[in-house]
Amino acid sequence: MKIYTKRGDAGDTGLFGGGRVPKDDVRVDAYGEVDELNATLGLVRGFSPPPELDAMLHRLQDQLFTVGAVMATPMDAKAASHLPPLKESWVTDMENAMDRFDNELPKMTHFILPGGTQAAAALHLARTVCRRAERRAVPLLREGTIPKDVVIFLNRLSDLLFVMARVANHRANVQDVKWIPEKPSES
Amino acid sequence: MKIYTKRGDAGDTGLFGGGRVPKDDVRVDAYGEVDELNATLGLVRGFSPPPELDAMLHRLQDQLFTVGAVMATPMDAKAASHLPPLKESWVTDMENAMDRFDNELPKMTHFILPGGTQAAAALHLARTVCRRAERRAVPLLREGTIPKDVVIFLNRLSDLLFVMARVANHRANVQDVKWIPEKPSES
Amino acid sequence: MKIYTKRGDAGDTGLFGGGRVPKDDVRVDAYGEVDELNATLGLVRGFSPPPELDAMLHRLQDQLFTVGAVMATPMDAKAASHLPPLKESWVTDMENAMDRFDNELPKMTHFILPGGTQAAAALHLARTVCRRAERRAVPLLREGTIPKDVVIFLNRLSDLLFVMARVANHRANVQDVKWIPEKPSES
Ligand code: B12
Ligand code: B12
Ligand code: B12
Ligand SMILES: C[C@H]1O[C@@H](n2cnc3c(N)ncnc32)[C@H](O)[C@@H]1O
Ligand SMILES: C[C@H]1O[C@@H](n2cnc3c(N)ncnc32)[C@H](O)[C@@H]1O
Ligand SMILES: C[C@H]1O[C@@H](n2cnc3c(N)ncnc32)[C@H](O)[C@@H]1O
Ligand SMILES: [Mg+2]
Ligand SMILES: [Mg+2]
Ligand SMILES: [Mg+2]
Repeated sequence: MKIYTKRGDAGDTGLFGGGRVPKDDVRVDAYGEVDELNATLGLVRGFSPPPELDAMLHRLQDQLFTVGAVMATPMDAKAASHLPPLKESWVTDMENAMDRFDNELPKMTHFILPGGTQAAAALHLARTVCRRAERRAVPLLREGTIPKDVVIFLNRLSDLLFVMARVANHRANVQDVKWIPEKPSES
Repeated sequence: MKIYTKRGDAGDTGLFGGGRVPKDDVRVDAYGEVDELNATLGLVRGFSPPPELDAMLHRLQDQLFTVGAVMATPMDAKAASHLPPLKESWVTDMENAMDRFDNELPKMTHFILPGGTQAAAALHLARTVCRRAERRAVPLLREGTIPKDVVIFLNRLSDLLFVMARVANHRANVQDVKWIPEKPSES
Repeated sequence: MKIYTKRGDAGDTGLFGGGRVPKDDVRVDAYGEVDELNATLGLVRGFSPPPELDAMLHRLQDQLFTVGAVMATPMDAKAASHLPPLKESWVTDMENAMDRFDNELPKMTHFILPGGTQAAAALHLARTVCRRAERRAVPLLREGTIPKDVVIFLNRLSDLLFVMARVANHRANVQDVKWIPEKPSES
């Protein structure tokens, strides 16, 4: 089977389990953004993040494929029973990692200008792409056609990516730059 | 003429041929995404892909400007006759390139974690941005206000970018990492 | 307070000033894109742009947080009076910078293929992300729920990023490649 099947040339495409929908369907849009997020994590890894972060990113990329498969499957489709399981432990693992990293990092009480090392900068970018994917997933959650675990996963992941960006800088001795808002104008 | 004309400060803008539309019009959104795709290809080229791929990317960037010009022109506008032609050979060239690369590459029967060399990682990112552009172009196709060749071009291009990512890794002796889904949970 | 509050796990979130909205609300989408733009500027800075550009980018990142705070605050909210001011001088500063750079650069009468140095390529990417953010801000402007200065800022910024990309290449002795459209086909 060739990689290019041309089946999508007219603007519609297939879900897992078989239904066909237009490519601008909210569902396709949502897992398309998860695919973009996954690619952005690949970009981060190309910038040689600290090995511990790289291993985490590898795991997250793997998990995101399960998230993507779940999103590509209408909850009531027969195919749903063929899906690999979305594990709750993935979320608690992320929370534990954040708690652990928090001890290593200076306390944060301000926004920070995204950037620093190339890996940190790309992690911030991934954070914002993750949040975009979350925004696109929310209408599916509201319609009840994806499990709520998908949004929880993405919500936690964007926070983890923020913390990982900080760790990447911290371990490279690069200081995060705080955003100090100006005083409101009198009026 | 200054680069900044300020004409768009109120939120509307001009199409090729003259009509004005709000900047959040589906058409503007769609060719804006093609612009972003083109910029992402520029980023790939900044990561020194193999020379053969770089030359292809140069050509694709050039073709995308024609695609963009076509998308920026309502099909019934007089300006349409001033457009450079969208060539069918661009699509068959992409198909031939994929067939040729396929011989060089190990057979693929699984998803792969996007990443590898910096060029490969950026090619995967470009692949997902291309698919986003395709999703935004589809409503215009449905309305019949862009030629179908635009969607065909983008559909084929995203597959080509996938194959090019694999080639970039293969020629750098970097192995693609397969996604092996876990067994579905009994239930 | 932990970085992950889990408050957004159900798909809704808080604005500045206190109201809650779904995460796919146009307002959240719009400032989410500004966040992505800010992260993309961080990426540019990771590619070592010329020092003068780097200093400008630092300033722009700072300004974008004020833009983001303004966008995250419904214009009629009490919190609006606690916002740092969006300054008109930021726009005139950008215009002056463009005028100044224009003298240094060869005159431009064609589109250019986005790319060149890594910093220039990332600046083009930032330019297109800026324009995407602008597209998402426009519906809020139309509803009258953000000040018009937000769109003006983003409109001018995308032009500045174009010029900065050209400067990044020019100072690195990299020539921009023009797009020369083919002649329209007779018909
Ligand atoms: C959902 C989906 C996606 C999603 C989400 C996937 C996820 N899990 O996160 C996204 C958007 C990421 C995606 C991307 C791509 N996809 Co897809 N995708 C699907 C779809 C609809 C379901 C796959 C799935 O998730 N299955 C769930 C798992 C648990 O079940 P599974 O059946 O065991 O899945 C296996 C195979 O489907 C897949 N597979 C089998 N043969 C091949 C061959 C290739 C080349 C690839 C990439 C995968 C692949 O590997 C899986 C792992 O075991 C299928 C079509 C279908 N209806 O089945 C297409 C499908 C597998 N995709 C396809 C393609 C071409 C791609 C892309 C190359 C498109 C592109 N240009 O970007 C990329 C590759 C991305 C990558 N990193 O490898 C083709 C493969 C054609 C072929 N030669 O066999 C299919 C068959 C669709 C089609 N055109 O008919 N995809
Ligand atoms: C569609 C469009 C785009 C699209 C798609 C283009 C495509 N083909 O893919 C996109 C979104 C990519 C785009 C981007 C930009 N555009 Co534009 N675009 C247009 C538009 C509406 C039509 C152009 C077109 O495609 N013509 C089709 C070809 C076949 O016809 P053409 O007339 O021969 O096109 C030539 C000129 O229009 C153009 N050109 C002439 N002078 C100048 C000067 C500059 C600085 C540039 C960049 C181009 C340019 O070069 C073309 C090649 O020969 C025109 C306005 C209009 N109504 O004409 C603006 C226009 C050309 N764009 C303009 C600008 C400023 C830009 C951006 C710099 C905006 C930004 N900040 O990102 C970028 C530059 C991108 C780049 N890589 O160079 C300005 C140029 C102002 C000036 N000083 O002359 C125009 C005139 C709009 C305006 N503000 O009034 N654009
Ligand atoms: C709008 C907003 C955003 C916007 C826009 C911000 C902008 N100005 O451009 C965007 C989308 C960029 C954003 C991003 C993030 N945000 Co936010 N954001 C808000 C919100 C709604 C208003 C903040 C604001 O703009 N205030 C305007 C300024 C003028 O007023 P201020 O009150 O003095 O703002 C100060 C604090 O709010 C903030 N701050 C205080 N403590 C902390 C702690 C952390 C960890 C951070 C990052 C900021 C922060 O620093 C500001 C500077 O003085 C608040 C919640 C709320 N209702 O207040 C959350 C809030 C500050 N954000 C939060 C978080 C977690 C984040 C992110 C880490 C999320 C993520 N995973 O990406 C990122 C961090 C980005 C960064 N670069 O640092 C949390 C912080 C939780 C905590 N531990 O204290 C809050 C409280 C929301 C919540 N979950 O309850 N955010
Ligand atoms: C930190 C702040 O970011 C906003 N917020 C929460 N989730 C998202 C998302 N997916 N995309 C953009 N903005 C979001 C809320 O306003 C929150 O308070
Ligand atoms: C490989 C799978 O990706 C999905 N698909 C097809 N086209 C797009 C697109 N433009 N964006 C996101 N997903 C897409 C379909 O589900 C297809 O089967
Ligand atoms: C240069 C051309 O780009 C288009 N244009 C103007 N603003 C945007 C935007 N935010 N996003 C995408 N395209 C835009 C208009 O067609 C303009 O003429
Ligand atoms: Mg969140
Ligand atoms: Mg396709
Ligand atoms: Mg503009």
